[in-house]
Amino acid sequence: MKQTIGFIGLGVMGKSMAKHVLEAGYPLKVYTRTKEKAEELLSLGAEWKSTVAELSNESDIIITMIGYPQDVEDVYLDEAGIISSSRPGTYVIDMTTSQPSLAKRIYEQAKQKNIYALDAPVSGGDIGAREARLAIMVGGDREAFDYCYPLFEKMGQNIVYQGEAGSGQHTKMCNQIAIASGMIGVCEAISYAQKSGLDPSNVLKSITTGAAGSWSLSNLAPRMLEGDYEPGFFVKHFIKDMGIALDESNEMDLFTPGLKLAHELYEKLAEEGNENKGTQALVKLWDKAEVNN
Amino acid sequence: MKQTIGFIGLGVMGKSMAKHVLEAGYPLKVYTRTKEKAEELLSLGAEWKSTVAELSNESDIIITMIGYPQDVEDVYLDEAGIISSSRPGTYVIDMTTSQPSLAKRIYEQAKQKNIYALDAPVSGGDIGAREARLAIMVGGDREAFDYCYPLFEKMGQNIVYQGEAGSGQHTKMCNQIAIASGMIGVCEAISYAQKSGLDPSNVLKSITTGAAGSWSLSNLAPRMLEGDYEPGFFVKHFIKDMGIALDESNEMDLFTPGLKLAHELYEKLAEEGNENKGTQALVKLWDKAEVNN
Repeated sequence: MKQTIGFIGLGVMGKSMAKHVLEAGYPLKVYTRTKEKAEELLSLGAEWKSTVAELSNESDIIITMIGYPQDVEDVYLDEAGIISSSRPGTYVIDMTTSQPSLAKRIYEQAKQKNIYALDAPVSGGDIGAREARLAIMVGGDREAFDYCYPLFEKMGQNIVYQGEAGSGQHTKMCNQIAIASGMIGVCEAISYAQKSGLDPSNVLKSITTGAAGSWSLSNLAPRMLEGDYEPGFFVKHFIKDMGIALDESNEMDLFTPGLKLAHELYEKLAEEGNENKGTQALVKLWDKAEVNN
Repeated sequence: MKQTIGFIGLGVMGKSMAKHVLEAGYPLKVYTRTKEKAEELLSLGAEWKSTVAELSNESDIIITMIGYPQDVEDVYLDEAGIISSSRPGTYVIDMTTSQPSLAKRIYEQAKQKNIYALDAPVSGGDIGAREARLAIMVGGDREAFDYCYPLFEKMGQNIVYQGEAGSGQHTKMCNQIAIASGMIGVCEAISYAQKSGLDPSNVLKSITTGAAGSWSLSNLAPRMLEGDYEPGFFVKHFIKDMGIALDESNEMDLFTPGLKLAHELYEKLAEEGNENKGTQALVKLWDKAEVNN
């Protein structure tokens, strides 16, 4: 008999992930702030719960995929939140990208109620979620990781246990930090190609396969060239992630000139009204810089 | 009957490339400043030429793979250089990473003597050269590109015609620009992993396959973790390339905050005695930053 899964948060990512869980045969209960986002899943057989508390009390494993650390804190630690509403022995998995320190607090408070908490943020974007090819980076107790592994396998392909509570979030920060500076390089390369009179699409044929190759260059640069700024991953969420990474880096006295620069550029991009665009919209700052010169 | 190839410059890259040409059955004449570097090729059947002029006069296609733009200018445009010593109808291919404007000058001067010049810098590093898997980005006349294509195929796999003279060099600048900022992200991610108490090798397992993935992360980050700073690609050569890219960007009024930052960091790295290390040595600045904190 499969465990009953409670899924909270059915945005672009969460909806695809929950669907894979449901299709794998797990009984699924869902809650999300905007009920319309649940409709497809309900039509496929998921059960709607109108409060976090109700969902938590009726689930064996609870997965959250929500927006900001404040939302995570509320949904887990509020009076009628997950921790106070779940039964002892429940597993709770936060797959939101959030603060490592918050992941540790949730873990500690869960432990006092004999609830097993994992932090398990993902990478791979909307496509990865849709195709169940997410990378999942997990922190918490090894035993809890092993217990939940079959469930992770329904959503992702590269599932790695990274260590104690908070380690999944720290690993995700490494991921976002590597992306942040890389995106600047992609925008500059595209802009250089355009300004020097090259055919940028043809340039990509030369440079994506060698030492300059990256996921961003292969997947986002073509969208930049088409002026396609539809969100795979929202600018506003990337700014949130970089903000967490900067806070953590400052606490560790870490040297992060590239991350700081990327954060500034994305803040500027958001100020100009692009916070709901995809991260590839960063190249708009270069288009503008060109016009200004 | 295969064309006689003259090869000038037998450094880490040039030696492997010339060897593939020789092994493909082309008669090969070689010249390089330090004759010892030619010995392996001579033992395999290449013929030594003691001057650029002699080599140029006896070759159908001349390939150069040398150090700095000044070297390129000298070897092509000096009184006893390639252009004045080659016969009409000769093809000359500079595969050094050099200035787009110099590539155009060489093209123009060659044309006046009915010599066909191509600029064809490569990407892929020592491994790519050894395994004949280089990306080759070519500028010049389309007909000359087509004529030399079978020869390029002996050295590389991703061979793309990019346009008029200088376009190969411009494309290579796009390549180096994309790498430059990306390297900062890789160093910051590695450093964050170390300082936050994660196992950095395990972090790489999570982050190399997703949206943070890049050639640098897969190939150079592991060397960083092992403290292996052996040059695949020299710090000093990367600084040269970034310098060219900055000059070109300034002329085009291009916005390049990431490239500027990377150039500054690599200059600092070189000042600290690392100019003959591989580009992955950049992470040493982070080790040091940690010690200073």
